[in-house]
Amino acid sequence: LHSMSFATPQDAEDAFYDALEGGDAEAMAAVWDPAADIACLLPMSPLIQGPEVMEMWRSMFEQGMAFDIQVSHLAWIEGGDMALHLIEERIGQPDRAAGGPVPTVYGTNLFRRGSEGWRLVMHQNSPVPPPPGAFGEGAPPA
Amino acid sequence: LHSMSFATPQDAEDAFYDALEGGDAEAMAAVWDPAADIACLLPMSPLIQGPEVMEMWRSMFEQGMAFDIQVSHLAWIEGGDMALHLIEERIGQPDRAAGGPVPTVYGTNLFRRGSEGWRLVMHQNSPVPPPPGAFGEGAPPA
Repeated sequence: LHSMSFATPQDAEDAFYDALEGGDAEAMAAVWDPAADIACLLPMSPLIQGPEVMEMWRSMFEQGMAFDIQVSHLAWIEGGDMALHLIEERIGQPDRAAGGPVPTVYGTNLFRRGSEGWRLVMHQNSPVPPPPGAFGEGAPPA
Repeated sequence: LHSMSFATPQDAEDAFYDALEGGDAEAMAAVWDPAADIACLLPMSPLIQGPEVMEMWRSMFEQGMAFDIQVSHLAWIEGGDMALHLIEERIGQPDRAAGGPVPTVYGTNLFRRGSEGWRLVMHQNSPVPPPPGAFGEGAPPA
């Protein structure tokens, strides 16, 4: 699995969300560029860089955490050996009870092409704006 | 000003924050790649793309908005014709009274090199985590 190579940024991105859903640290390690300049910015967490990134995923997965995330693509920005994907993530849990609102966040994934194909070099989440009327049902539009 | 070209991602980034501080729509237009795939994700706002990006800045500056932002670099991720800068932005206002806490957010800037040098293609902000003890002064560490 460690020798897996990804022919496109999308292949690497699919593998990232598969690793999250499976809680699979080995699969996650194969997704990321082993370089020192990788970075990850999760909600309400400080920026982590380099080896800290895989230590963080390994720690989360060892605690049994896994994430069933539905992804919608919003934008791709490409340039030579790098590609940025801006997406919307709808976050569930594998054993989540049906019903209720599904948390949604923006996701930003940066990929870089190296000698072994495309790897993830940055993952970031940002809150989405509140939906219209979130501050009072039936409130008139501003 | 429109024909300005930036030799490095940092030159383009410096010009971006200068344009924000000056509330200068022409300078801001020179900073961004004129391509259709640019994107901007400001706090509590939906993703905007392409021509919407400059329309948004122009509208903000026409309302007299300007932003005096102090920048600290956290990480650079580079690859060929693209470069990502992860930064911390401390946001003041030119006429802000002294004292009081200064809002801080993460900033993510993606640059791309074209025939006319480096231009900004994506700007994003994310909240920083609350400081230790923010949920109750003197609270014991978790």
